[in-house]
Amino acid sequence: MKPTSIAVLGTGMVGKALATKLVGLGHRVTLGSRSARHDGATAWAEAHGERAGQSDFATAAAGAELVLLAVKGEHAEAVVDAARKGADGAALDGKVLVDITNPLDFSQGMPPSLFVFGHDSLAERLQRAAPKARVVKTLNTVNASVMVDPDRVAGQGAVFVSGDDAEAKATVKAMLEGFGWRQIVDLGDLSTARGTEAYLLLWLRLWQATGSPDINIGLLRAPDGAR
Amino acid sequence: MKPTSIAVLGTGMVGKALATKLVGLGHRVTLGSRSARHDGATAWAEAHGERAGQSDFATAAAGAELVLLAVKGEHAEAVVDAARKGADGAALDGKVLVDITNPLDFSQGMPPSLFVFGHDSLAERLQRAAPKARVVKTLNTVNASVMVDPDRVAGQGAVFVSGDDAEAKATVKAMLEGFGWRQIVDLGDLSTARGTEAYLLLWLRLWQATGSPDINIGLLRAPDGAR
Repeated sequence: MKPTSIAVLGTGMVGKALATKLVGLGHRVTLGSRSARHDGATAWAEAHGERAGQSDFATAAAGAELVLLAVKGEHAEAVVDAARKGADGAALDGKVLVDITNPLDFSQGMPPSLFVFGHDSLAERLQRAAPKARVVKTLNTVNASVMVDPDRVAGQGAVFVSGDDAEAKATVKAMLEGFGWRQIVDLGDLSTARGTEAYLLLWLRLWQATGSPDINIGLLRAPDGAR
Repeated sequence: MKPTSIAVLGTGMVGKALATKLVGLGHRVTLGSRSARHDGATAWAEAHGERAGQSDFATAAAGAELVLLAVKGEHAEAVVDAARKGADGAALDGKVLVDITNPLDFSQGMPPSLFVFGHDSLAERLQRAAPKARVVKTLNTVNASVMVDPDRVAGQGAVFVSGDDAEAKATVKAMLEGFGWRQIVDLGDLSTARGTEAYLLLWLRLWQATGSPDINIGLLRAPDGAR
């Protein structure tokens, strides 16, 4: 992917890991937070050189060509709503919005369930919240460390891509290749995010069973001609 | 696993594939159906030699040491309820009940959703329906062909095991090893079946994206010492 202006919305572990990786790959990255003043985002920007900046969600989105959403699922719709208000309400129009969130519902304790499931997904909700954005769901099936360093797990790990816009998915695949991903599985339209979001409930159990969040799955197929 | 009397409840593709494999491994297998007379089950039993039989659910369960449930998810509770009525209501008591079902809900068309999800699972419902059985969930994450021939997909594919009884899980793992499984992932107690049941929604999308149901996932971990 050629050097681009990128907004990473979310200042948690995922947002910082993605922003740091993207700066390292030569992009200009603005870390977006709820308010323009955010100590963690300021510290991150100061530590990562002249290509790193920070701003509120709307300003960050308005100034970016590519927008990554890396917030807790419960805040995702509110953050998209805040971000799109930039540039007189056009901050997300036509832009690739990379949705990395999961609709985890902790309201009944651990382990969590999902607050949207089955015949809808958080990705589709976000698309409805920003109808002119081109939403692509990806990277929500691994933790922050594996997102930006897929070879952290041994073997050929898969990352999944869901979206309605082929050009937007091509942009996201190029970004993923830059992160080191080789098994990039295009699942199809945005509704396929229902599958990767549901998988989180298995991922949580795999984390528990293995004792490590540095895990992934590889997609295995029958050898060609064996079908 | 030493030769055992096994009931396979369900006469569909999954039931027949499992029953055929188990007969081939030297077990005595009774294919259980709703009524004692079932053309498909009769034909199967006649084709598979003297170790193969057929019966209604209750009689099959009463005569078996190990019971496999391989019916459509929507019928699973009713079939367990029918099966336990054998042996004066004790047909499943103390027995390992291997649950291979998925709670697929086709009521709103394709692709399906799940009729139980999140803070409960079909496996747990079945355990409640037969409290004295020792329910172990497994094999529900692959199609019938891969269940009994894991090397049909290239690479190290995973199969998952969930259950509350360690001895029952050991029995099931031995059965899985007999089928050729090498990456057998013990997820923990029966509630972990919530994870493998939810995964079905991703599996369906992987099937759609790859164009083949002969697929699986492998569990990938960080190399030892990398954590």
